[in-house]
Amino acid sequence: MDCSDSLAKQIEFIREIDKLKQVFRQTYLMDDTRKENDAEHSWHLAMMIILLAEHAADDIDVLRAVKMVLIHDIVEIDAGDTFCYDTEGYKTKAAREQAAADRIFNILPAGQAQEIRALWDEFEARQTPEAKFAAAVDRLQPIMHNFATAGRAWREHGITADQVISRNKHIADGSPALWQFTEQLITTAVEKGYLSAKED
Amino acid sequence: MDCSDSLAKQIEFIREIDKLKQVFRQTYLMDDTRKENDAEHSWHLAMMIILLAEHAADDIDVLRAVKMVLIHDIVEIDAGDTFCYDTEGYKTKAAREQAAADRIFNILPAGQAQEIRALWDEFEARQTPEAKFAAAVDRLQPIMHNFATAGRAWREHGITADQVISRNKHIADGSPALWQFTEQLITTAVEKGYLSAKED
Repeated sequence: MDCSDSLAKQIEFIREIDKLKQVFRQTYLMDDTRKENDAEHSWHLAMMIILLAEHAADDIDVLRAVKMVLIHDIVEIDAGDTFCYDTEGYKTKAAREQAAADRIFNILPAGQAQEIRALWDEFEARQTPEAKFAAAVDRLQPIMHNFATAGRAWREHGITADQVISRNKHIADGSPALWQFTEQLITTAVEKGYLSAKED
Repeated sequence: MDCSDSLAKQIEFIREIDKLKQVFRQTYLMDDTRKENDAEHSWHLAMMIILLAEHAADDIDVLRAVKMVLIHDIVEIDAGDTFCYDTEGYKTKAAREQAAADRIFNILPAGQAQEIRALWDEFEARQTPEAKFAAAVDRLQPIMHNFATAGRAWREHGITADQVISRNKHIADGSPALWQFTEQLITTAVEKGYLSAKED
């Protein structure tokens, strides 16, 4: 494939992923005015990787981890956002997202399609230092947003501190320092009434 | 400074930059439903750096170029977005953005504040291969959005093809291949009536 064929496929993919700006999450912006979309969420995570890499459990390749968070939600263009406490939605999430990955990443030239797919598979498997750290910031960021909005998305969905801890404790695998910070946020959120300690 | 002092400052910065999601540009999303914000724009540019790096005029350090586009608009939290064809706005843009950089980047621990400020200064100066390529994708992306929306932002502001060429021809410094593609887009946009050839 010559350079112009490659560029045409890359441009088509760059156009396709513009749709990620219209996939909205359950999380509210910190100013509490509207829900956050996947594209701006992914930008925020990339900033967190760059700024917080020193707190990773193991040495990480920062560019690989940045790539993971930039691409991690692209499958939601087809599969939609699955709220992280939605146990029903999680039953079909993997199948929906695999089909989306097959369609969307294959818009790219073959070599890049394979590279991006491998990065996304690695992120999902959460076994490597980069994937563990990327998953840690992906979990911490919405907790910061919930805290900033007095627990708005938690309260709307009746989420308890037990659920937040259970769903997010793998942050410690990517970064013990970030998990310690997260635990403090959760404790303070319960004290302030942003989050119920247990189910009513 | 110990690790927890450093983390507290980093977290404060990560909270501060959430505001970038509410700084709106003149460009419309490709689905033409609303204007684009700086955070999702920056995410899109980072994807373009990763995918299009092979087309850069010189070999680039991809991570450095990705960092540049991720941070390049953060100053607009204070300084606001200046439309790239707004000649009046451009007279005060540098001073407004320097003041914003002084305030916002200095929320970070000193070492990181210096690193991010140096990257932003380098992006603005557009002298290094990374800065030239980052500037190239920052100019190409809104042209793609204008094309996808039948020239909506161009038409709203009465922009002509001469202006688009003059303002964007430095894309060639970062990537001759991307400038060739851009010229084709501009020509087609004029043929389709998305863009006037000259001022009426």
